[in-house]
Amino acid sequence: MSSDAAGFRALEWRGEALWLLDQRALPEEERWLELTSWEEVAWAIREMVVRGAPAIGVAAAYGMVLAALKGKDRLKASEGLADARPTAVNLFWALERMAKVEPWTPEAALAEAQAIEAEDVAVNQAIGAVGARALRDPVRILTICNTGSLATAGFGTALGIVRAVHAEGRLQALFACETRPRLQGLRLTAWELLRDGIPFQVIPDGAAGALMAKGEVTAVIVGADRIAANGDTANKIGTYSLAVLAHHHGIPFYVAAPLSTLDPSTSTGKDIPIEERDASEVVEVQGIPMGPRGCPVWNPAFDVTPAKWIAGILTERGMFEPPYAFEQSLGKKDCR
Amino acid sequence: MSSDAAGFRALEWRGEALWLLDQRALPEEERWLELTSWEEVAWAIREMVVRGAPAIGVAAAYGMVLAALKGKDRLKASEGLADARPTAVNLFWALERMAKVEPWTPEAALAEAQAIEAEDVAVNQAIGAVGARALRDPVRILTICNTGSLATAGFGTALGIVRAVHAEGRLQALFACETRPRLQGLRLTAWELLRDGIPFQVIPDGAAGALMAKGEVTAVIVGADRIAANGDTANKIGTYSLAVLAHHHGIPFYVAAPLSTLDPSTSTGKDIPIEERDASEVVEVQGIPMGPRGCPVWNPAFDVTPAKWIAGILTERGMFEPPYAFEQSLGKKDCR
Repeated sequence: MSSDAAGFRALEWRGEALWLLDQRALPEEERWLELTSWEEVAWAIREMVVRGAPAIGVAAAYGMVLAALKGKDRLKASEGLADARPTAVNLFWALERMAKVEPWTPEAALAEAQAIEAEDVAVNQAIGAVGARALRDPVRILTICNTGSLATAGFGTALGIVRAVHAEGRLQALFACETRPRLQGLRLTAWELLRDGIPFQVIPDGAAGALMAKGEVTAVIVGADRIAANGDTANKIGTYSLAVLAHHHGIPFYVAAPLSTLDPSTSTGKDIPIEERDASEVVEVQGIPMGPRGCPVWNPAFDVTPAKWIAGILTERGMFEPPYAFEQSLGKKDCR
Repeated sequence: MSSDAAGFRALEWRGEALWLLDQRALPEEERWLELTSWEEVAWAIREMVVRGAPAIGVAAAYGMVLAALKGKDRLKASEGLADARPTAVNLFWALERMAKVEPWTPEAALAEAQAIEAEDVAVNQAIGAVGARALRDPVRILTICNTGSLATAGFGTALGIVRAVHAEGRLQALFACETRPRLQGLRLTAWELLRDGIPFQVIPDGAAGALMAKGEVTAVIVGADRIAANGDTANKIGTYSLAVLAHHHGIPFYVAAPLSTLDPSTSTGKDIPIEERDASEVVEVQGIPMGPRGCPVWNPAFDVTPAKWIAGILTERGMFEPPYAFEQSLGKKDCR
């Protein structure tokens, strides 16, 4: 695994293949998978070998490079990759960027995918700096899911802010929701933080309210899978509960995301499609049955937090505050 | 396993032994353990072979019977059992009842333990009737942990109300939080409900807010491990979050518990000791490592819901409403 100032990378283009750190196997095993077709990339996104909205976007871009290299139908590849997961808009954003590459040669496709990857790291570092400036001392952060190097091309969004605050010596406490059903907090975030020597504690998702009531948290920071034009934000299931709890306890709730997560064509959160995943993700833990056979389950992958509960959206272009009016602030051209 | 109108029993006195359905092994296996000493009963409570505040009380009473049968030191047995778990007050209540048995013979001890067990079933059925009367149609309940036959001598508290409403044909929906870290919702409640043919869905704990926002829930009903004199209630970790979320969504939040869960000697929730359990309960799921080795964890077993968020406390003597003043309502003598 390569490491640099941006933290480690969980995604690498080598030769004519995309290599992905299989996030389903962490923390037990650091297993890399070599993908050589766009169909394999779509499978990896669907099965959550790679996850995290920005990382999905970068992976899909390389999927298009593989389609170009193999001389596959460009439109079909793009549509196939877009079908892999419905909620994270970075996937569609990256595919739109790849769709503009002309002439469509493997070299040009690779250059664009590499640009998307490099930009994501730079954007995350900028978000980190914006977040570090926005947070008041003492900094005691609660977060959910994994929004770090594993979820992006490197550094991370919400976890990038954690990295930036920690580098400044200002991180007093960090709590990571374990994030059922897939335990990205316990499995991925904890692995990343232990690896990078950033102190933290994992909590069961249900303990978030009690933790806030104890006065242990001064800011909640989460990532995003899609931000609607009005600021409503889709993110990992459990995020909405955290936002309501934070509001109730007078704790500011922030979303950290690149502007590529903004989807002006979605006017409000009601228009964001929410992926529902298989019951087995809840009834089985890492493939081992925990609940009784035939146990009925509701398993939405995401929920939507209304803009009114979001104190600020931390992006590479600064912090946006309610009422959110991205098009006015950014101009149409910067706003996809 | 025996079954009757009260549902099945997970606890049986047979010959000169207490038999417990090992709740750590459910739903995979219905394994019964035979306990023949008070020390084994204390171990079973500590290790959560038996759990649920009322069931712990009944088990401890039989633990005292075993001490009497074996001619063991009465005070030492009582103190040893009281040390097994700190939060649920029913444990101390049952031991106090056993302490009043005179003369202290095995026969007298057994008669009192059997009375405590029989009363618990009757009390739960009364709570079920009180709850069914209190709930308005449509009845769409969200609950947490296990409060059914497994958590009591039979029938259940919050789940007893579910049984009563279902028997009336009024149960339109039932959602069970899976209840990390020990998954009592997914492992025990789901097992009980499938067994009894009551329709339900399990949700990850983090999905409770999104479920309420969808308008799917008309009442939250939870059990209790200890109710302070002012109505503040300790219950399974995650309960406080549900209470805040319910309040935010205008959904009534009820506590269902026998009056033996009321502790007038604890004036407010601040005085309730909260058990913190081992990190391994979170990092491992059923003994299988999920998080990285050495992952730091905060693992409180319970949290405290302030009385002001509780719309009603449903007991065998009717529903109490805020401001809670149990001593005035019940008289000192009915109030331990």
